[in-house]
Amino acid sequence: MPSNNYYDVTMWPVGNPAKDVGEVINSIIADIKERQAATDVNDGGKPGAVIYLPPGDYHLRTQVLIDVSFLRIEGSGHGFTSSSIRFNVPEDEWPDLHELWPGGSRVIVDLPAAGDGEEAKGAAFYVERNGSPRISSVEFSNFCIDGLHFVPDGSGLRAENTYVNGKTGIYAATANDSFRVTGMGFVYLEHALTIYHADALSIHDNFIAECGSCIELRGWGQASKITDNLVGAGFKGHSIYAENHGGLLVTANNVFPRGASSVHFKGVTRSSVTNNRLHSFYPGMVLLEDNSSENLVATNHFLRDHEPWTPFLGVDNGLDDLTGLLSISGSNNSVVGNHFSEVIDSESIRPAGGTPVIIRLAAGAGNFVSNNHVVALDVSAKSSDSCFAAQVDALLTTEATEGLAVTTVMVDSASARNTVLDSGSDTQVVLDKAVNAFRATPTIGM
Amino acid sequence: MPSNNYYDVTMWPVGNPAKDVGEVINSIIADIKERQAATDVNDGGKPGAVIYLPPGDYHLRTQVLIDVSFLRIEGSGHGFTSSSIRFNVPEDEWPDLHELWPGGSRVIVDLPAAGDGEEAKGAAFYVERNGSPRISSVEFSNFCIDGLHFVPDGSGLRAENTYVNGKTGIYAATANDSFRVTGMGFVYLEHALTIYHADALSIHDNFIAECGSCIELRGWGQASKITDNLVGAGFKGHSIYAENHGGLLVTANNVFPRGASSVHFKGVTRSSVTNNRLHSFYPGMVLLEDNSSENLVATNHFLRDHEPWTPFLGVDNGLDDLTGLLSISGSNNSVVGNHFSEVIDSESIRPAGGTPVIIRLAAGAGNFVSNNHVVALDVSAKSSDSCFAAQVDALLTTEATEGLAVTTVMVDSASARNTVLDSGSDTQVVLDKAVNAFRATPTIGM
Amino acid sequence: MPSNNYYDVTMWPVGNPAKDVGEVINSIIADIKERQAATDVNDGGKPGAVIYLPPGDYHLRTQVLIDVSFLRIEGSGHGFTSSSIRFNVPEDEWPDLHELWPGGSRVIVDLPAAGDGEEAKGAAFYVERNGSPRISSVEFSNFCIDGLHFVPDGSGLRAENTYVNGKTGIYAATANDSFRVTGMGFVYLEHALTIYHADALSIHDNFIAECGSCIELRGWGQASKITDNLVGAGFKGHSIYAENHGGLLVTANNVFPRGASSVHFKGVTRSSVTNNRLHSFYPGMVLLEDNSSENLVATNHFLRDHEPWTPFLGVDNGLDDLTGLLSISGSNNSVVGNHFSEVIDSESIRPAGGTPVIIRLAAGAGNFVSNNHVVALDVSAKSSDSCFAAQVDALLTTEATEGLAVTTVMVDSASARNTVLDSGSDTQVVLDKAVNAFRATPTIGM
Repeated sequence: MPSNNYYDVTMWPVGNPAKDVGEVINSIIADIKERQAATDVNDGGKPGAVIYLPPGDYHLRTQVLIDVSFLRIEGSGHGFTSSSIRFNVPEDEWPDLHELWPGGSRVIVDLPAAGDGEEAKGAAFYVERNGSPRISSVEFSNFCIDGLHFVPDGSGLRAENTYVNGKTGIYAATANDSFRVTGMGFVYLEHALTIYHADALSIHDNFIAECGSCIELRGWGQASKITDNLVGAGFKGHSIYAENHGGLLVTANNVFPRGASSVHFKGVTRSSVTNNRLHSFYPGMVLLEDNSSENLVATNHFLRDHEPWTPFLGVDNGLDDLTGLLSISGSNNSVVGNHFSEVIDSESIRPAGGTPVIIRLAAGAGNFVSNNHVVALDVSAKSSDSCFAAQVDALLTTEATEGLAVTTVMVDSASARNTVLDSGSDTQVVLDKAVNAFRATPTIGM
Repeated sequence: MPSNNYYDVTMWPVGNPAKDVGEVINSIIADIKERQAATDVNDGGKPGAVIYLPPGDYHLRTQVLIDVSFLRIEGSGHGFTSSSIRFNVPEDEWPDLHELWPGGSRVIVDLPAAGDGEEAKGAAFYVERNGSPRISSVEFSNFCIDGLHFVPDGSGLRAENTYVNGKTGIYAATANDSFRVTGMGFVYLEHALTIYHADALSIHDNFIAECGSCIELRGWGQASKITDNLVGAGFKGHSIYAENHGGLLVTANNVFPRGASSVHFKGVTRSSVTNNRLHSFYPGMVLLEDNSSENLVATNHFLRDHEPWTPFLGVDNGLDDLTGLLSISGSNNSVVGNHFSEVIDSESIRPAGGTPVIIRLAAGAGNFVSNNHVVALDVSAKSSDSCFAAQVDALLTTEATEGLAVTTVMVDSASARNTVLDSGSDTQVVLDKAVNAFRATPTIGM
Repeated sequence: MPSNNYYDVTMWPVGNPAKDVGEVINSIIADIKERQAATDVNDGGKPGAVIYLPPGDYHLRTQVLIDVSFLRIEGSGHGFTSSSIRFNVPEDEWPDLHELWPGGSRVIVDLPAAGDGEEAKGAAFYVERNGSPRISSVEFSNFCIDGLHFVPDGSGLRAENTYVNGKTGIYAATANDSFRVTGMGFVYLEHALTIYHADALSIHDNFIAECGSCIELRGWGQASKITDNLVGAGFKGHSIYAENHGGLLVTANNVFPRGASSVHFKGVTRSSVTNNRLHSFYPGMVLLEDNSSENLVATNHFLRDHEPWTPFLGVDNGLDDLTGLLSISGSNNSVVGNHFSEVIDSESIRPAGGTPVIIRLAAGAGNFVSNNHVVALDVSAKSSDSCFAAQVDALLTTEATEGLAVTTVMVDSASARNTVLDSGSDTQVVLDKAVNAFRATPTIGM
């Protein structure tokens, strides 16, 4: 070791990091705990350590258990490459490929498959510590966690396209403070990052894609931030999910398809979803549910268009076009200055003949919806065997076969005393003016 | 040393980094200057160096003087844990705690107490260089600066709750360019980060909490950014403060209590406070003072509620509820698309019987206040001995005993020619329509 | 080498990194490729490597060719200092300067001058790989690329002020995925960062200044982000440029002068320019051209004032004041909640006697312009030999000799069916109400 409290997994005497980096890291953690056992009340502490993974392939066959504060695990490469594209290349073409797998400082999760509801068991890194104080300042930085394969789910989808494998990247089970996840890559995990009871958590500048669910903040928590990430979950899962959180800041993320939702809040209050770029192939992009209240949803760019890549044609999240791209069950939220592009083939609308809804106030009261701009285009859906080309082509297509009629704001009877301003014309906004305040966006000649 | 210009404090032959890392770093800086003394006009430079602090406890008993450009001081762990919570745990429970102190790469500031106005003297890292060019590209990354204890201030508060100790983390006294402070932790310092005369400074992704004041940009400066930080100052201090700055970008920060202010500008122009999550227990959250003009305050989430943690009950910043959560003395500012939640017990309003003010235009002219949404709830204040639980509980409480009447915008007679749009109803906005433009937020039935 | 797949350029046996770091890095890449040649379909990969440049001066006389995925090149210092200021200090004062050159982990680009259109040839780091998959996860982190000198361009400007030298920092020629450029410094390059065909690229927290052009995303691409950078190009070049990109997020950047533009889009769709601080000395700050559509331009701070530094007096980008600070040729864009400060000397307006335009809708249809606040001041231009002092002084000047009449929004006849709300009074907005929807910002007494 070059110095105290600095560990390189490739130089540790116990275990073989290529064969089971989990055993190696657990042995290092045991060493840290043994060496730092004495608590010195005269200002001396238990400073923790850094564990370094140089670039390389590290199979993980033993779950890492983290129960010490001030532990930083870092690599030198987030290592993302698209496994999804590669798995959909015919295998006889594989020998022609430059490389087959993700790379960088790459932890390959080789745990036995965990069953439904056993996500903790299937986690490469499992954090749990009871008692006081809460575990603090655990940091994950700049390495790759690769779940390797998805497995058949009985749906008829090819195994590698199911987003199912019972594997989790990082799972924090108990209350924690000031954790950091930065510069990481996550790929082909059913759950990338699952954190319970977070306080002042920072999830910043990561690449989390081709995972069933990407970021899930569970239980309850406060004062955290999810910022500046590239994120894209699978069609059944969450790109960004939080429940019972207050003061959460979700900003500057570029959330791409194909998550069942882009941002999903349950019982989340006084939080912000601002300034993100959100792209989805399905309705229900941002869901504020279960009395999510006093949140700010502002200056986001929403794009909903069609799946252009043939392996996933016909797959969706099960929601119809009346759901809204943004749906709110909660009170006193602010929805200001967002751009919405709905670019779909009118033939595909569900229910057939329906008018797609952009912003839906489903339940609650006192929401403020102002200055949102909706663009709706009717385009012929196109698809291609080439994922990147298809996506870019779809993204750059702005010519509609004709305009698409949408309901820009629909206020259900279960939601009242809302204010809707400059977010659609009289014909585009559906609400009961007896119980909601309304000002239509001016139209030509008004 | 593994290579030239790379220094590890634990391997340097002079001094003992555990006992006085200040002596060690000063000795390293002397070495850098000696080795890089020759200026080669044939394109060869003085490249500076990196000084590495592995995780560990490093007492600092000698102030570090930085007067060379291109110096990076970096650790492997921001090391924050809540000292405030721990100090408010009864001492007989301390033996049961997992750990007592912050950790990571932890610099423990053991300088003699500096008096009032002697912050420079009490600084762990002191930057000063006169002459030309300005000192450039000094970087602080991923270590912890811990002030260890607060001291009695005569207020009757417990010593460890005063936020007073005459210690400063980093103090830059002279003009500087392209500095970076990234991934750091600061805890229990009276002043965390005090920078004079900054140009193109980046303060990004740090954890700065439980400090008297957190970020202070003094003197004058330009073109800097304070982004993506977790910040929370003490009740007397600044979370984010700037004076006489132009072109400052304050964005994507999660600023939690209990700073006397969240963002405080004096004589700041053409700057942005956008997209932050701001939470305070007192009025006067964002102050634009001393002719702060042409600034943009947009899409921020403001929450003001009550201190829920018993050790700080009764403590405040001395401002009453007519101050405004946002108060502006300056001209031509834009206040657009912000969400304000005022969640207080009406019994606590000061002056008693007053109507709390949310946005106050105290002096100046030509401000533009548009599309701000104010939510005001009257709730019974609750408190608890458990800091985290109390805060989360308060944050998630959205049920009011009844509505709370507030003045959403108050325009004083010293401020004129302002434009106030869609930021409150006729009864919620107090201004002189003869000298200000006004459009009320539409109400039901209008 | 401390471990497999970790390379330190100063310890590599081939070449001399001080004399030609290009030769050294190419030799390292050859070693990586040789060692990682075998593709193991049993989950074993080609993990790539990290190449470390400790702080120091590294001349680069051989272009680095990158054609392997998962390569991270990292240093320990972005090393920016202003070469522009230094080159405009009289040479007889140089011996009094603390240092002359940029520093940190500094790559000095010493390639032979490339001609016009030969940017690829003049690139320090050249990325090219054809075939499948696209090259992925190449990362550049925390080092400096210095082009050293500009050369005469025949314009009469001093050589070091031309922003011309045929040198490029990083040039990616072929389609790429999940690249990262983070914490870098770029200085005195004609082109800092030129990336073709990017997917999920992250350009985050860099310092890119005193370069002809800074960030150029060419060809086509998608789902990338340019976030939290300090950027400032030369008067002929781009600060941030993208063509044929979809889903690009440009946010939280502080873009300072003197780029010909701050953000320039050609054929860019469904992208965001939000929450940036933009400062320019010329009109045409943000250009959405060639049918750039469905983009969101929101909560940015625009400042246009005059060049205050004597060496560049009289230099500009050739555009007149009718161009607009924001000019749009495209459809269905949203322009919401921006602040514009136009602070100029009315004597300098071009064409003389013209009324400067702030937002110009030049061509297209269906744009939504709402809640923008324009401040226009007529001030006497001042200049100084001291760059920093002049800029700060200008930035902090808010007192106008008198108000300046401007057209806040001009809609050309080639643009129709736009909606313009609360972005200027009846006299400040010029449009054909027969084909555009309009609501004037209320004025006093309305």
